Amino acid sequence: MSKHLKVVVIGGGSSYTPEIIEGFIQNYESFPVREVVLVDILEGQKKLNIVGNLAKRMVEKSGLPIQVQLTLDRREALVEADFVTTQLRVGLLKARIYDEKIPLKYGVIGQETTGPGGMMKAFRTIPVLLDICKDIEELCPDAWLFNFTNPAGMVTEAILKHTKVKSVGLCNSPIAAYKWLSGLYQIPARDIYCEFVGLNHLHWITQVKVHGVDKLEELLNNRDGYSAKNVPQFEWNAEFVRSLGAIPSYYLKYFYLTKELLEEQLLLLDQEGTRAEVVKRLEDELFELYQDPNLSEKPKQLEQRGGAYYSEAAVHLMKSIYNDTRDIQTLNVQNQGILDFLPADACIEVNCVVTSHGPIPLPVSHIPTAAKGLILAVKSYEQIAIEAAVTGDRGLALQALAIHPLVPSVNEAEHMLNEMMQQHQLYLPQFFKS
Amino acid sequence: MSKHLKVVVIGGGSSYTPEIIEGFIQNYESFPVREVVLVDILEGQKKLNIVGNLAKRMVEKSGLPIQVQLTLDRREALVEADFVTTQLRVGLLKARIYDEKIPLKYGVIGQETTGPGGMMKAFRTIPVLLDICKDIEELCPDAWLFNFTNPAGMVTEAILKHTKVKSVGLCNSPIAAYKWLSGLYQIPARDIYCEFVGLNHLHWITQVKVHGVDKLEELLNNRDGYSAKNVPQFEWNAEFVRSLGAIPSYYLKYFYLTKELLEEQLLLLDQEGTRAEVVKRLEDELFELYQDPNLSEKPKQLEQRGGAYYSEAAVHLMKSIYNDTRDIQTLNVQNQGILDFLPADACIEVNCVVTSHGPIPLPVSHIPTAAKGLILAVKSYEQIAIEAAVTGDRGLALQALAIHPLVPSVNEAEHMLNEMMQQHQLYLPQFFKS
Amino acid sequence: MSKHLKVVVIGGGSSYTPEIIEGFIQNYESFPVREVVLVDILEGQKKLNIVGNLAKRMVEKSGLPIQVQLTLDRREALVEADFVTTQLRVGLLKARIYDEKIPLKYGVIGQETTGPGGMMKAFRTIPVLLDICKDIEELCPDAWLFNFTNPAGMVTEAILKHTKVKSVGLCNSPIAAYKWLSGLYQIPARDIYCEFVGLNHLHWITQVKVHGVDKLEELLNNRDGYSAKNVPQFEWNAEFVRSLGAIPSYYLKYFYLTKELLEEQLLLLDQEGTRAEVVKRLEDELFELYQDPNLSEKPKQLEQRGGAYYSEAAVHLMKSIYNDTRDIQTLNVQNQGILDFLPADACIEVNCVVTSHGPIPLPVSHIPTAAKGLILAVKSYEQIAIEAAVTGDRGLALQALAIHPLVPSVNEAEHMLNEMMQQHQLYLPQFFKS
Amino acid sequence: MSKHLKVVVIGGGSSYTPEIIEGFIQNYESFPVREVVLVDILEGQKKLNIVGNLAKRMVEKSGLPIQVQLTLDRREALVEADFVTTQLRVGLLKARIYDEKIPLKYGVIGQETTGPGGMMKAFRTIPVLLDICKDIEELCPDAWLFNFTNPAGMVTEAILKHTKVKSVGLCNSPIAAYKWLSGLYQIPARDIYCEFVGLNHLHWITQVKVHGVDKLEELLNNRDGYSAKNVPQFEWNAEFVRSLGAIPSYYLKYFYLTKELLEEQLLLLDQEGTRAEVVKRLEDELFELYQDPNLSEKPKQLEQRGGAYYSEAAVHLMKSIYNDTRDIQTLNVQNQGILDFLPADACIEVNCVVTSHGPIPLPVSHIPTAAKGLILAVKSYEQIAIEAAVTGDRGLALQALAIHPLVPSVNEAEHMLNEMMQQHQLYLPQFFKS
Repeated sequence: MSKHLKVVVIGGGSSYTPEIIEGFIQNYESFPVREVVLVDILEGQKKLNIVGNLAKRMVEKSGLPIQVQLTLDRREALVEADFVTTQLRVGLLKARIYDEKIPLKYGVIGQETTGPGGMMKAFRTIPVLLDICKDIEELCPDAWLFNFTNPAGMVTEAILKHTKVKSVGLCNSPIAAYKWLSGLYQIPARDIYCEFVGLNHLHWITQVKVHGVDKLEELLNNRDGYSAKNVPQFEWNAEFVRSLGAIPSYYLKYFYLTKELLEEQLLLLDQEGTRAEVVKRLEDELFELYQDPNLSEKPKQLEQRGGAYYSEAAVHLMKSIYNDTRDIQTLNVQNQGILDFLPADACIEVNCVVTSHGPIPLPVSHIPTAAKGLILAVKSYEQIAIEAAVTGDRGLALQALAIHPLVPSVNEAEHMLNEMMQQHQLYLPQFFKS
Repeated sequence: MSKHLKVVVIGGGSSYTPEIIEGFIQNYESFPVREVVLVDILEGQKKLNIVGNLAKRMVEKSGLPIQVQLTLDRREALVEADFVTTQLRVGLLKARIYDEKIPLKYGVIGQETTGPGGMMKAFRTIPVLLDICKDIEELCPDAWLFNFTNPAGMVTEAILKHTKVKSVGLCNSPIAAYKWLSGLYQIPARDIYCEFVGLNHLHWITQVKVHGVDKLEELLNNRDGYSAKNVPQFEWNAEFVRSLGAIPSYYLKYFYLTKELLEEQLLLLDQEGTRAEVVKRLEDELFELYQDPNLSEKPKQLEQRGGAYYSEAAVHLMKSIYNDTRDIQTLNVQNQGILDFLPADACIEVNCVVTSHGPIPLPVSHIPTAAKGLILAVKSYEQIAIEAAVTGDRGLALQALAIHPLVPSVNEAEHMLNEMMQQHQLYLPQFFKS
Repeated sequence: MSKHLKVVVIGGGSSYTPEIIEGFIQNYESFPVREVVLVDILEGQKKLNIVGNLAKRMVEKSGLPIQVQLTLDRREALVEADFVTTQLRVGLLKARIYDEKIPLKYGVIGQETTGPGGMMKAFRTIPVLLDICKDIEELCPDAWLFNFTNPAGMVTEAILKHTKVKSVGLCNSPIAAYKWLSGLYQIPARDIYCEFVGLNHLHWITQVKVHGVDKLEELLNNRDGYSAKNVPQFEWNAEFVRSLGAIPSYYLKYFYLTKELLEEQLLLLDQEGTRAEVVKRLEDELFELYQDPNLSEKPKQLEQRGGAYYSEAAVHLMKSIYNDTRDIQTLNVQNQGILDFLPADACIEVNCVVTSHGPIPLPVSHIPTAAKGLILAVKSYEQIAIEAAVTGDRGLALQALAIHPLVPSVNEAEHMLNEMMQQHQLYLPQFFKS
Repeated sequence: MSKHLKVVVIGGGSSYTPEIIEGFIQNYESFPVREVVLVDILEGQKKLNIVGNLAKRMVEKSGLPIQVQLTLDRREALVEADFVTTQLRVGLLKARIYDEKIPLKYGVIGQETTGPGGMMKAFRTIPVLLDICKDIEELCPDAWLFNFTNPAGMVTEAILKHTKVKSVGLCNSPIAAYKWLSGLYQIPARDIYCEFVGLNHLHWITQVKVHGVDKLEELLNNRDGYSAKNVPQFEWNAEFVRSLGAIPSYYLKYFYLTKELLEEQLLLLDQEGTRAEVVKRLEDELFELYQDPNLSEKPKQLEQRGGAYYSEAAVHLMKSIYNDTRDIQTLNVQNQGILDFLPADACIEVNCVVTSHGPIPLPVSHIPTAAKGLILAVKSYEQIAIEAAVTGDRGLALQALAIHPLVPSVNEAEHMLNEMMQQHQLYLPQFFKS
């Protein structure tokens, strides 16, 4: 690793950027980054300037020798990078509106990380990420790529299958679980050990130890707390969770409470529009704030944006690789036999020891039988959808959608697919080769 | 194996019995059964007498030295048996009506071999079969038990996990596939090789060879033919089936065309009642025929009953074990690593070589990715449901139902479960221990 | 498969040829071969003519419409072949003398199928077989290649790893086991079921059933009978074999009685020379007989040659593929998970069901713990030696030899390797690229 | 874990004890042990007193509030222990003399941790350890047992298979590797990452990273350094080690240089007697020193004893469990799928993350093919020998010895076994039940 640490943030015009800048400032001592390059595309130039200038003011205020650069030239930015992060959205929030709206017309959950919406996002995103990886292979082959872009598990699996880039997928929900438990037991997160089993946005917590003492059973009777801003708050069925013997991620409500969440989505659509539209309004307010030339720190309002802790996760991981700390983090990496009912090249979300040569996944102590079925059902969909995204094979796209657990019929899948393909045609060149 | 071959048919009063008797008569030369004992319970005595007397007339007409005995004493019947078959229905067709009707109230497919109805049937049936197995362990420990009782895969898995009885689960649908192909290509079934992958009522045909020549691709474009009387006839989506690269069993329509089948079930419920009620009428007509003292052969009408070829499957298997023929049959047996993403003790439906010491499952050439997800999703449900059936643990029952792919919500699962448990209480002592 | 069945025998000038010709004649009804092409190289032309003329006389006597052709043009011979067999010896018996003699100088067993001698034979043979396979891929890509050439397991593994040819390795020792048991119990071999576990020349019999009845235990106390002409006759230690719980192949004496066999080899070397020299004298006598123009059948003396039943194995397998008989034969095929501690692409010796599309290996009921260790120790050597044979990497050759269970030291391995490499240099071009 | 940390040292009269006492003193801040109980048997009472009094003087000098107690009452000692270590030798050094001497008579390596000598030591030791475990299960079920007693891998596997005690096997050789590399590169051991693959006394180092940079290749050309006092110093064959692609443990010389080590053993036997006799003289000198009432620290001479770093390993592991440090240590634990060609319940030596709830083994990046064969060959022997040790089945003992890679013949195995069994009869009650 070079002495002159360089981090490239692709999608640097994102509203999240102040958070990662704050992370670099707060962790400078153990992770002395010297150069941060924020990269964006032409359509994002305005936002890049606003957020980039805020970043520069934040660094200036800190007095640290960190250079912040803004650019539209991705290839130039990548030269000799040590770490690259991606936080981009192909088609912007406008595309997300369709991801969330169209499925609802067919009585199916509309969500940007799973189901029909998640699949379309994967179709738009994976080719772009593979292009970025080609540049990385050429310009900074030793760099680590941290992928935040959703569906993070699928995108990371595509990268690991189709490129040589050293890539890790990152999600904020494991950190959220630790924050929840840390608050609950009033102890630092590092005194807690959680075992996560599953996929990105599809995990179960199967162990909680505090100083080696098992807390799982008492937590199975405490069903609030581990939740997220962007997932509706329904209470878990107590008997069900106790019988499961593991704490389900809040994302699992899409699968375990499909009927209720669908009803709520339809209600909210009426009341406030899609989640994309809500986020759009929030982002507009944030950029309003960011423009204030007197602002030189991350504004509090950012925490309501839904993706809290993402940057914390990224800086934490950079620090551990840089310092060979060998601490345990929950990451999206290749399965390699950890979940023995999944292919070796599947991307899973699992505890890893982070060394200077990357994360080593830890074996899991046990996997609930109920979880296995859903994990493989979703992973089968993911594998076929990734292949469809890479090849542009429409039959595979239909197959993937038809076998997704949230989709009730091959025929409905076909109708939805037709409409979504048409709507996103601009961002799906692989499916529309003449 | 004793020289004096003895077969015990538990549930001998069933309308299917004439078929198995016909099988014994037609195969006497290679499988010289000397004693057939038809066993039933007190409630079934009338039917037992009717069908038993028909069986006696059939044998008499054949002139073969086969003894047919009728009894209500199961333990006496089992002494020194070589083969035992079970074709029983705990709670009779009346219970099946509830299996099919109650789920529909909650917008869920009502079916006696999968989904909520199948689970309740498993709960009623498994304890009875385990009791029969205790008798077999004591009275005829070397006997082979062929289980036809649905859900046949789950019942067989329960037997293999909880007893020492040598048991095989049998289904007529693989034979039906061969009959279909035999008709299509106008060649004997033995000139065709099909590879089946999956579970009982959840299989895919992944290879079809005629004299070593691959016919799969042409069959993927031919989507009629492999169907069944008791499953609605919807056409498969052509693009989907081609993309799958395997021929789905007609039972897979419950999963791939859930919406359409649910709509049809609701329509039929209105028009003709549940399938159980249709079958009830058919059976009444059959028993009317069976009473005719001039009838001494299997009446043609039996073929419309839905379970054609069951007895053919049973006699075929008995013959192969008795003669060590080492031919290939598609049976429900322990996985033992054949499907590497399933537990070793799961019951699967797979090609086996039948030797005198039983069936040896054959490795499969490949498993469609799409199939893996659904197989493990259903098997996870099955495993938990079997444990619930054996232990009477209501939390497990709820968990099993909630994770079944056809059930859209934990809360709906709870409501359905409450109603079904109450309705079938009489046949579910394990869940109602004081 | 073409109507005009054509079989090509590479190494057709071998003294074994009359046996395979006899097989074709005896099995003509079920396997109507029309064309047999005996191929050899220039150095073997004289033997080819002698044995080829005998073959022609045999066919003529039979009155069957089989054409026998003799040729030195391998490529011409292969055109449109249905089956190809190889029974060749690169370097002839002269090379085998060194395989058997040199190791003895270093206190190591000298044997042409395992140990240092077997490795050198693999080095000479594998490149030649891969060349033959290139021709098959081009000239008769649908043909089946049956490989008899020792070390048959290693050669077959090399072919399956490095070519697309449909190949099966064949050995006479499983047939020999059936012959032994058939004689012992005075019943036809087809009434016996043996389970073989292991590798070529390294198998254990773990099940013996006669009409479904277990005979293993009584056989563990009967330690003569299953033996071979070319392996010294030492009695097994009774307590050891009983504790193993499986019948070891006679080839296992090289590993279990290394000291004794080494002593005997040294003694015999003194008394009668190497086995190669004994065989050389036997072959000379056979060819003397073959020249007799009045001879038109396989002479009895051939049975003493050591490779009895090889041709029986080959014709039996051709018949089963041609007729899709689906009977069980013990063959050398890809592991594909059958022995779960070996790589999927390792070649193993195992029971297979033979269909028209080839052999499907059968899962094994259990593997003795003791066998596992030796199987993987030998397979590790085989894998590295195959890679050395293909790449000509001398480091790999040394590594393979050093880890062979019969070799007591890396340093001794190096000395032996140096001497053997020099001796066989002419046949090892891959190791002597300038 | 109790506040009042209590450690019980079984075999406390060992000459190693001053080392562990020194460890407790040096690490008191992070591992505040309050009570150390040294337990021994009646025959060891004199040594216990000598070494125990030295321990007391060492603690007194440190001024720390650690109580040292000496006792012959093992059960009393174990009550409420937090950690238990075992460093005992059933039959004392006198038995070891036979382990080393008898095999040499049969031309086989005589060694106390592998081969015939190691097997006999396992037979004497395993029943005693299982007895200790019974006491632990009853008196301090939450305690961790650290087993140093050789053959440590086999003893630990026996404990993990046959008891519920939380046990870890410890060896000093991984620490020795780190010390060697730390000296070589002049950096602290914690800046180095080594990956160990294999079993106790049978490992390969497959990765060496310094700050994430691969050093393996340069180390494969540097063949001195990683060695031990008690294993003869032969140079590795350079071509062989480079081809292996991994650094073999010095214990592997018994397998890779069998001939040379056997010759040296025979020479040394003549010159200075067995290693046991050498150690005996060393120990006598040590105890002479220990008696000196003015000595209140670990004497330098102890480092020449051969087992350096054992106590360092133990204190290091206690500290990590107590403090949940989650650092990486190389330990002997259950395989659980890490080495996929070994049974799940085999004990392996592997990198682990040490948490407050114990070690979690880390997946290995790759396993040299050559290593797999030897690992499974030795593990097969170990498994059968453990079963023999527990059951007292002589057939299994013979089988285990006969398949050990160092033993050249079943018949020789039988002769050695007879002699060794007779010699050690007193300590092998399980084999001599009337």
